[in-house]
Amino acid sequence: MSSPVIDTRWNLPASGMPDSWFNILPRMPEPLKPPLHPATREPVGPADLEPIFPMALIEQEMSSQPWIDIPGKVVDVLTLWRPTPLVRARRLEEALQTPARIYYKDESVSPPGSHKPNTAVAQAYFNQKEGTTRLATETGAGQWGSALSFACSLLGLECKVYMVRASFHQKPYRRVMIETWGGQVEPSPVDDPDHPGSLGTAISDAVRDAGSRPDTHYSLGSVLNHVLLHQTVIGLEAKKQLDLAGERLPDVVISSCGGGSNLGGLSLPFVEDPEVRLMAVEPSSCPTLTEGRFDYDFGDTAGLTPLLAMYTLGHDFVPPSIHAGGLRYHGDSPIISELVRSGRMGAVAYPQGKVFEAAVQWARSQGTIPAPETSHAVRAVIDEALAAREEGTERVILFNYSGHGLLDLSAYDDYLTGKLD
Amino acid sequence: MSSPVIDTRWNLPASGMPDSWFNILPRMPEPLKPPLHPATREPVGPADLEPIFPMALIEQEMSSQPWIDIPGKVVDVLTLWRPTPLVRARRLEEALQTPARIYYKDESVSPPGSHKPNTAVAQAYFNQKEGTTRLATETGAGQWGSALSFACSLLGLECKVYMVRASFHQKPYRRVMIETWGGQVEPSPVDDPDHPGSLGTAISDAVRDAGSRPDTHYSLGSVLNHVLLHQTVIGLEAKKQLDLAGERLPDVVISSCGGGSNLGGLSLPFVEDPEVRLMAVEPSSCPTLTEGRFDYDFGDTAGLTPLLAMYTLGHDFVPPSIHAGGLRYHGDSPIISELVRSGRMGAVAYPQGKVFEAAVQWARSQGTIPAPETSHAVRAVIDEALAAREEGTERVILFNYSGHGLLDLSAYDDYLTGKLD
Repeated sequence: MSSPVIDTRWNLPASGMPDSWFNILPRMPEPLKPPLHPATREPVGPADLEPIFPMALIEQEMSSQPWIDIPGKVVDVLTLWRPTPLVRARRLEEALQTPARIYYKDESVSPPGSHKPNTAVAQAYFNQKEGTTRLATETGAGQWGSALSFACSLLGLECKVYMVRASFHQKPYRRVMIETWGGQVEPSPVDDPDHPGSLGTAISDAVRDAGSRPDTHYSLGSVLNHVLLHQTVIGLEAKKQLDLAGERLPDVVISSCGGGSNLGGLSLPFVEDPEVRLMAVEPSSCPTLTEGRFDYDFGDTAGLTPLLAMYTLGHDFVPPSIHAGGLRYHGDSPIISELVRSGRMGAVAYPQGKVFEAAVQWARSQGTIPAPETSHAVRAVIDEALAAREEGTERVILFNYSGHGLLDLSAYDDYLTGKLD
Repeated sequence: MSSPVIDTRWNLPASGMPDSWFNILPRMPEPLKPPLHPATREPVGPADLEPIFPMALIEQEMSSQPWIDIPGKVVDVLTLWRPTPLVRARRLEEALQTPARIYYKDESVSPPGSHKPNTAVAQAYFNQKEGTTRLATETGAGQWGSALSFACSLLGLECKVYMVRASFHQKPYRRVMIETWGGQVEPSPVDDPDHPGSLGTAISDAVRDAGSRPDTHYSLGSVLNHVLLHQTVIGLEAKKQLDLAGERLPDVVISSCGGGSNLGGLSLPFVEDPEVRLMAVEPSSCPTLTEGRFDYDFGDTAGLTPLLAMYTLGHDFVPPSIHAGGLRYHGDSPIISELVRSGRMGAVAYPQGKVFEAAVQWARSQGTIPAPETSHAVRAVIDEALAAREEGTERVILFNYSGHGLLDLSAYDDYLTGKLD
């Protein structure tokens, strides 16, 4: 006889997907400081952004409406993989002998393998609706570029991705993914074939492309308010699913943080629940929230973007080349920065070796292989669960499994063979 | 206002997983011919298999019970990702303008990315229960080796994988996957470092390893009756889910076929429904079912295994090096062979170019990137849906999305750049 089967995954039907995005802007502890024009240092207005973004996204960027409708055509595409499962990591709990209950939102189930398409689909839709037929963007390791190419493919737009030249040569699989969905990839910088490139050069190439062609807009995968807005489906679904799992609110919500989009997506819907602790996890080698200063700074290296009020390591800071490419950003989302500054959210930093140790423990207990970025959250979750054991207290931990590591296996090879920095 | 959300995925809770495997042996149109000893050519008995397999699997291999209980500990691990979703491919239907309704069972959601762990977990469990602490196996491109390493990791066994030397060097990601789960990988043949290896040499190395160590058994990922038995959870779940989707039986069930395990897993539970057409899809370059002869032949190149009654191209047939490595096998499962011989199942073969054309059409409409093996089924599904359009008749098509292609992206690169043979 079998023992009764224990549920460890909570799925929602397509109709369980939220019909509105949760807008944190009117609910912030303090209003955000406005972005400033790079030349005049005056607050940026809609007209300044119109050459590169559609009006709907500019409005969302500044909106004070508490909820914003998700268009039906966006829902149609998102329900190819959403709602994503909420999963309880029982085998990890057992391995850690912790009284904590560990839940995660599995965003790795999207076709490109991360949370990124949640905003890519919305951005492609609003651009298409206003007559744009082509999007340009930059990509480092390729997560964002593949998400945008995927979205453009399903919505019938052309997609041009400027890929950091070093990654273009070292990570051919992400390039092929972009091309399989019909996107066009070009190594950056376009004007110097001997330069290895950087996120900074790729942003410049993409913005220049969008500025020079009337059919083309620019698209950004993190940092901005409208990007975090589109990601809030994650936290909204998680709230419903925790209820199905018989839990009330989580005690702590944990996510890795680069530009802030997977973190914001999961945690923003919990900001107004004061009993829920919120935690950002970043790499020690790019410690924006834990060691940066809160100040106006440029979003890019060259100083072409508006100045944003955020934690920053300085726009000329060059992070070392770690495997979690998505967490190598000198600044951070203004929303996340303000939540940390005001004390509503905490932040912690980990070195790469401790992160992959946690990732391998996860793989050998839960069975899946997390992305290097996601593994930062896994590290913090394990430490939180061990603290619960130490203290002998139950707690509910919720985290964002933001992506799988199937295209990052060389990082695991480096860890397993002792070659990790 | 949004339009009503349409369900395209049907999930079952963990308790919806079958509690028994479906055994086709007592229900075959004609009884299977027994395997013969390679030396004596007499029918093989349990004692002949005991040195390399546990008794529970040997019993399953020959069982006449119509249903066989799935042990609770196997269910515990399988429910990490099972039941897998049944999904309707509405966007593909729209792209093809077909009146057919296309459903697929998504086996790509398992941690190793294919249906293979359904049997790997069961095999690891029954070996462990009888005191074996280490399993040895062969792997070509790495799908099976990674599934067995995953299963051994979660059940606490050691795992040794002999990997075809050429793949060991050309497909490092699959090797790293195996190692991330703690498995040990060695290129085959072990005694000749200059030899590129083949599935034949790797089987020999693994069987020799298992025969020489009392703590070690051998494990096979396809062909045998007990392997197909473990895979029947796929078809059993699909029947329940089609009912949830408001369908009765499918008109046709389609799967790719190499050794027959994903095909058997989905289609065996439909064998006793005479109105359901069953179809196997294989590569033109290794046309076992469509051009082979039905005869006793060895399972391996060297002629060490028992003789099986099956369709075969001859055990010395060397298939060309196509991207669907999992479909490069000279023989086929005796169960599948008998179903084809008796006329209960049909078979069709496609060349590689037509297969990747279908795979890219799938990726650009449904959004996911199928494995090269799975893409063979996708090709046949598209042709079936186009035939339905031609004839102007509705039909329900069910197929097995046996694995994702995220570790096979070089195949897509070859297709997109016109380098495919």
